[in-house]
Amino acid sequence: MTELRRDAVTGNWVVVATERARRPDHFRKSKAKDEECPFCYGQEKMTPPETLAYRTNGGAPDSPGWSVRVVPNKYPVFVRDASLRPSGSGLYYSVPSAGGHEVIIHSPDHEKSLPELPIDQVALVIRAYRDRYLFFKGVKEVDFIEIILNHGKDAGASLEHSHSQLFAMPLVPPAAQDQLAGAADYMLKNSRCIYCDIVETERENGVRAIADEDGFFAFMPYASRLPFESWILPLEHQAFFEEIDEASMRSLAKMLILILGRYNEVLSKPSYNLFLHTTPCKSEDRSYHWHIEIIPKLTAIAGFEFGTGMMINISTPEDAAAFMRGEKSDQ
Amino acid sequence: MTELRRDAVTGNWVVVATERARRPDHFRKSKAKDEECPFCYGQEKMTPPETLAYRTNGGAPDSPGWSVRVVPNKYPVFVRDASLRPSGSGLYYSVPSAGGHEVIIHSPDHEKSLPELPIDQVALVIRAYRDRYLFFKGVKEVDFIEIILNHGKDAGASLEHSHSQLFAMPLVPPAAQDQLAGAADYMLKNSRCIYCDIVETERENGVRAIADEDGFFAFMPYASRLPFESWILPLEHQAFFEEIDEASMRSLAKMLILILGRYNEVLSKPSYNLFLHTTPCKSEDRSYHWHIEIIPKLTAIAGFEFGTGMMINISTPEDAAAFMRGEKSDQ
Repeated sequence: MTELRRDAVTGNWVVVATERARRPDHFRKSKAKDEECPFCYGQEKMTPPETLAYRTNGGAPDSPGWSVRVVPNKYPVFVRDASLRPSGSGLYYSVPSAGGHEVIIHSPDHEKSLPELPIDQVALVIRAYRDRYLFFKGVKEVDFIEIILNHGKDAGASLEHSHSQLFAMPLVPPAAQDQLAGAADYMLKNSRCIYCDIVETERENGVRAIADEDGFFAFMPYASRLPFESWILPLEHQAFFEEIDEASMRSLAKMLILILGRYNEVLSKPSYNLFLHTTPCKSEDRSYHWHIEIIPKLTAIAGFEFGTGMMINISTPEDAAAFMRGEKSDQ
Repeated sequence: MTELRRDAVTGNWVVVATERARRPDHFRKSKAKDEECPFCYGQEKMTPPETLAYRTNGGAPDSPGWSVRVVPNKYPVFVRDASLRPSGSGLYYSVPSAGGHEVIIHSPDHEKSLPELPIDQVALVIRAYRDRYLFFKGVKEVDFIEIILNHGKDAGASLEHSHSQLFAMPLVPPAAQDQLAGAADYMLKNSRCIYCDIVETERENGVRAIADEDGFFAFMPYASRLPFESWILPLEHQAFFEEIDEASMRSLAKMLILILGRYNEVLSKPSYNLFLHTTPCKSEDRSYHWHIEIIPKLTAIAGFEFGTGMMINISTPEDAAAFMRGEKSDQ
C-alpha cells in the first residue's frame, strides 16, 4: 500500500509506503558480494525492466554493456496506478501516491562513487537526470520532480553501488513550497531573483565561497542547516533544470566532482545527501533558480530538530568554507 | 557563539551554536562509568549550579539528596545574554539566540529510564517541567518553550542517565507554528478544537487508539510521520500545559509509564524522541490543545525527508496501534 495522508492540523502530507519495509536493510559493502548487487553487469534481471540506458554497443535492453542505466525502484514511494482514488473526508483524507520512483545507476562500476568517475561519465548521469525529468514532466499526475543522491549508509543509502533516485510526485512538497514562495515574493517586490542576488553577494564577499568555474558557483549558505552544507547554482538565472544545455552538463559534472572530491578529502569520505531543486514541472513561473544542495551527514538529527522543525548547526559556514577552500586544515 | 540565522529565501531560522561541537560524543553506557556521570549523586559540581531541585532532606544546593534536579545545559543552544543585539540586514540577518536551555535529571538512578521509575517519581519530573516552564514564561525574551526527552543514542542522547531538556526560545518554531495555525483556523471555522474532535473520533473508531485512562488518551495519529508515532492528550480541552493540576500530573505520569513501557515490550527498548507541545507562553489564545508526541527511532531519516520536508512512513498507524494494544505480536 502506498498513499499520501494529510495531517488534519498542519495540512502536511505523509507518504505511507508499507512495501518499503521489505527493502534489504543490510548494506552491501564488500566486493565479494558483487554477484548479489542488482546494479552490476549481468544482474539486470534483478531489477524491474529498465526505462532508460545509454549503450554504445547496441546491446539489448536489460543486458550488460550500458554506461548509465535507469530502472523503476523495486519498493516505490510513488507509483503509476490510475485505479487509485482519493479517499476519506474531513479529518481523514488521503490521495493516491501517484507518480514515479526510479533509480539512476551512475556506472557499471560497483566500487566508484560519483566524484571518482570521469567527467564524461558524470555528465552522462546528469543527462539521464534530464531525460527522465523530461519524461515525467509529460506525465499528467506529476506536479513535482525531485532528484536525490543518498551516498553512504549514514545518509540512508540501502545499496552501496553508486546511484541516484528520481521521485515524481503529485504535489509540491513543503521544502520546495517554502523556497518557491520566498523566490516569488522577492521577485514581486524587487523584480530580481533572490538566488541571483545571493550569488552576487557571495562572489563579492567570498567568505562562504568554495568554487567558481565554467558558469557554476559553489558556496556554503549563510543559514546552513547542518555543518558543511553547500549549494551549487548556475551563475545565469535558470528556472528550469531540464533546459540545461550540453556544455552546462559537462561544467556541472566538473563542479560536482570538485565539490564531492573536496568533501572526501576534508571530511574523510563522509556520507551525504544531495538534492536537485527546480521549478514545479507544470509551472511557467520563472522566478525560481534551480540548484543543487549537498548536506554531509556529520551530526545526528535529534529531538530538537524534529520537534521544532528548526536545525541546530554546530559549525559556521564561514569556517566550513575555509576548510573546503584548503585555507584551514586543523579542526 | 550562538545565534539565530534567517534563511533569506524561506524565512526559516537556523540555530548556529558552535559551542555544542565540544560536547562529549561518546555514550556513557556501562555502570563502571557512574563516577564520571555528571547526573549522578556526588557529581553535582560537574554541572552548572542547579536552578531547581526537589529535596526532602533539607540538603544544600548542588549536593546529593535530591529526587529531581534541574541544571543549565553546559553547551546551551539558547543563552541568557542581554548584551546580544540583532545584526545584519537584507539577505543576512541574525538575532540573538536568547532564552534558556536546561537539563531535567529524572532521578538519581543512573540505570533506570523514565518508565522504569515509580509513578510518584515520574509525577515529580512533570512537576519540574511545569515549575521551570513557569519560570521561563516570566522571562521577557522567551516566546516559546519546548520540552524534549531524547532517549537512547539513536535518538541523539549524549548521556545515558535519563534526562529531559527544556528549550526556552525567542521565537515560535515552524513545527509549532504549523500546528497553532491549523488549530486556530479550525477553531475560527468550526468553533471547536481540532484536537478535541480528533480525540472524539479516535475514541469512537478505536482502530488507532492505545490507551484511555484517568483523563488522558493515547493513540497513533492518522498521518503518523514515522512508524509507531504516538500522541498523548488530556481529554479535556487545555491550551496551556502549565495549568496542569496535581491529579493530572499523576495521571500523565501513569500514562507515560504505560506507553513507554509498551514500546519497550513491543519494540525491544527502542530509542525515542518525546516532545511536549503547548501554546506559546505569551499567548492568550485558547484554540490549541497541549499534548505529548513520541517518535521511536526505528528508521533513518534520509535524503527524501530532508529534501522534501515530507516523511515516508513504512508502516500504518492502524497496524502499529494493534501491536501496542497487544492484539498482534508477529511482524
